[in-house]
Amino acid sequence: MRFDAAPGVVTAGVAVLEDALRVQGAEVTPVAWRPPPPGTADALAAIDAEAPNQRAVARLLAARPFLVDVVPAREAVPALAAGRGLLHAGPPIGWEDASGPLRGAIIGALLYEGWAADPGEAAALAASGGIDLAPCHAHGAVGPMAGVVSPSMPMYVVRDEESGTVARCTLNEGLGKVLRYGAYGPEVLDRLRWMERVLAPVLRAALRRHGPLDVRALGAQALQMGDELHNRNRAATALLLRALAADLVEAGATADVFRFVDGNEHFFLNIGMAASKAAADAARGEDGSSLVVAMARNGTEFGVQLSGTGDRWFTAPATVPDGLFFPGFTAADANPDIGDSTITETAGLGGFAMAAAPAIVRFVGGDVDDAVANTLAMYGITLAEHPAYQIPALGFRGTPAGIDATLVVRTGVVPAVNTGMAGREAGTGQVGAGLVTPPIACFADAVRALAAIGSGPGPGPDRGGSP
Amino acid sequence: MRFDAAPGVVTAGVAVLEDALRVQGAEVTPVAWRPPPPGTADALAAIDAEAPNQRAVARLLAARPFLVDVVPAREAVPALAAGRGLLHAGPPIGWEDASGPLRGAIIGALLYEGWAADPGEAAALAASGGIDLAPCHAHGAVGPMAGVVSPSMPMYVVRDEESGTVARCTLNEGLGKVLRYGAYGPEVLDRLRWMERVLAPVLRAALRRHGPLDVRALGAQALQMGDELHNRNRAATALLLRALAADLVEAGATADVFRFVDGNEHFFLNIGMAASKAAADAARGEDGSSLVVAMARNGTEFGVQLSGTGDRWFTAPATVPDGLFFPGFTAADANPDIGDSTITETAGLGGFAMAAAPAIVRFVGGDVDDAVANTLAMYGITLAEHPAYQIPALGFRGTPAGIDATLVVRTGVVPAVNTGMAGREAGTGQVGAGLVTPPIACFADAVRALAAIGSGPGPGPDRGGSP
Repeated sequence: MRFDAAPGVVTAGVAVLEDALRVQGAEVTPVAWRPPPPGTADALAAIDAEAPNQRAVARLLAARPFLVDVVPAREAVPALAAGRGLLHAGPPIGWEDASGPLRGAIIGALLYEGWAADPGEAAALAASGGIDLAPCHAHGAVGPMAGVVSPSMPMYVVRDEESGTVARCTLNEGLGKVLRYGAYGPEVLDRLRWMERVLAPVLRAALRRHGPLDVRALGAQALQMGDELHNRNRAATALLLRALAADLVEAGATADVFRFVDGNEHFFLNIGMAASKAAADAARGEDGSSLVVAMARNGTEFGVQLSGTGDRWFTAPATVPDGLFFPGFTAADANPDIGDSTITETAGLGGFAMAAAPAIVRFVGGDVDDAVANTLAMYGITLAEHPAYQIPALGFRGTPAGIDATLVVRTGVVPAVNTGMAGREAGTGQVGAGLVTPPIACFADAVRALAAIGSGPGPGPDRGGSP
Repeated sequence: MRFDAAPGVVTAGVAVLEDALRVQGAEVTPVAWRPPPPGTADALAAIDAEAPNQRAVARLLAARPFLVDVVPAREAVPALAAGRGLLHAGPPIGWEDASGPLRGAIIGALLYEGWAADPGEAAALAASGGIDLAPCHAHGAVGPMAGVVSPSMPMYVVRDEESGTVARCTLNEGLGKVLRYGAYGPEVLDRLRWMERVLAPVLRAALRRHGPLDVRALGAQALQMGDELHNRNRAATALLLRALAADLVEAGATADVFRFVDGNEHFFLNIGMAASKAAADAARGEDGSSLVVAMARNGTEFGVQLSGTGDRWFTAPATVPDGLFFPGFTAADANPDIGDSTITETAGLGGFAMAAAPAIVRFVGGDVDDAVANTLAMYGITLAEHPAYQIPALGFRGTPAGIDATLVVRTGVVPAVNTGMAGREAGTGQVGAGLVTPPIACFADAVRALAAIGSGPGPGPDRGGSP
């Protein structure tokens, strides 16, 4: 060690020490490091996930999702074929714990299905337990924001041609007052009925003329056109319309169908979500794997699932995103984080692909360097670089893909998530957009659970640290 | 000056010295500098263009070009209303000096108009002087590649709402065997007739429903989506279709119209060229200004025009672009540089906006750093940064816009131009794409001429150096 320069001070993650030194005039170089959450050290030591992670992430990366159909939810999701069931975003939740936007969307869906005559009756029905609520993720589906799916709603059907895995998602309603943000007024229900009766049938007919549509190829193109495919879908929407326009005309699409798509910058999002879900589901069920196969929020809790821990959710309270608000709104109006759209980050898109979408910073806040820095940081918690999703600005490097929960816990670096922000009150709609800092606690819980499985049925050394 | 490090050697633009030093094992730092062309030093000293340049470039930047109509060339260009006239790309040229692709396009246009019965008769007619040939640029128009315009061809009409300047351009035919690359077979003529009878009328009707379309706003969006709007128009084409689709349907567009647009990555190019022409023409006629208002090639010569030198062309032999060739073609198959599409670079797009389009390097050669370096170098020869055309990867910096010919001559840095490459033989079509190094001689001639105007009617001090 040489001492011919003045000594410097490096502080690791403890801001109070850093600040004290600065006050005394010292030069301080802070390092972004946080100690692993309590009780995870033994779990991390016990896990040897390398081989199963390689198998699981290989399936995530190999997925070739194609859009194959548009069908009513009651046909797409067997659980919705009969009875009074609804799907919702995020980990399981009941009416009593549901936030404003989720309650609003449930009320809207009950009105739309004719299961209730007015909002009060709908709320009473839901509160009475007369409706079966289940997560989209438990039924091979995903839903943006509240993510409420009822039997009559049309859904995209996406199939991974590599593994055969099928995933579903509803159609995007556009911005403003929409069900997924918890609005349930007459214009919301009228639009849902138009989507069911006009939009979905003609999309289905056009898609059948066109044949299965390669969602991965379209998404890869859009990444080269400034989309990150979560909060920016402008290029993908335009490419999708361009690809289907001739078939839509032949299928009899009227001008209002084209106007609806043109008026909706996120029209592609739901197709991309279903594609990411198909890829992530293909990577499930690998014993011992710490690969994250779902991140999702129900507006109250943020939850994750790992390939090696089955259908178990690991949850923690959802945080409020940090970003930019639409005129007239502030952080006080924002609901905690909500929606299954984090499936895009789970598959190596969204916040992980921000470097491909520098213009996104004008929507979610920050500057172009932040966008690049977000993507670069994600290489530290992922298992691979996506072979199809490439970032021109990084010399066509593949996006960081395949989150390893042990790396999250080990480094304290949590997944970067771009998201829209719902108003806290049911019916408000979107109030802004920004970045979410997912709670590390659910990753820590997942890692402890994975270690416990690996150590057999008896109590493992770290078992006592689990909640 | 301190000498506590080893001395280094900097060489300025003289490769033979640099190489000799390297052979002797010296560390050499080459600087890209070339001495001003012979006879320009006095001209540069005599020109004080600052105030006129500021006025001229202000009009270039303020232009708000809108696509307002699609009409037959005989209505759009008075010179084509009667008689047997054709427009062509680049500076003035006759049949005798025309290259293969331009001759092929002239033959095709004569067959298309029914002025000749077969290619032999067409060539004889053109060679006999029976056709009036004039540059597009002389008639408020631009044309890609051969740029041949005949009376029956439909043209876009773009109007700068700021200055009222109107510019026109033909419609893009797609790739493969097309007239602008000098092909004139039956499929080329059939396509031109379909464009005249089906495509143009429905585009016109859709545009009238839509109202004037803001080309600058659309182009600005496309720059944030990876286009540079010369050799990459993928986003702009998709955005255009998205914007007009509903009106096209209401105007009765059939599926083949949508298929044609979807099959043509450069469908937007010709609209963008007309918009750039409107902006550049708005900047013409400023006495004393060294602003470049046209760069164009006729396949034999490269020519430039300055704001302060009226309609005079300054030309030099066109060079062969350097880039990537389609399978089966080599540099020996390439025609020298051809087309008016350099109007995009004249307006701050194309090669000047390459940093916005990193994916372009897969088409024209080089790597992403080259794309950024090209744009950065152009700030050194331009008068401004475009307020609407911004580059996300450079922190939303405006593109370098408004080429100052005196800066080109002073620095030896010539405009960066992206282009397609035509086959040398008439009828070959496109053989590749790449970057052009425009000949500096025409900029030097233009600067000398500007100085001569400034020094009054008598012979100026530098006059003897003009060719």
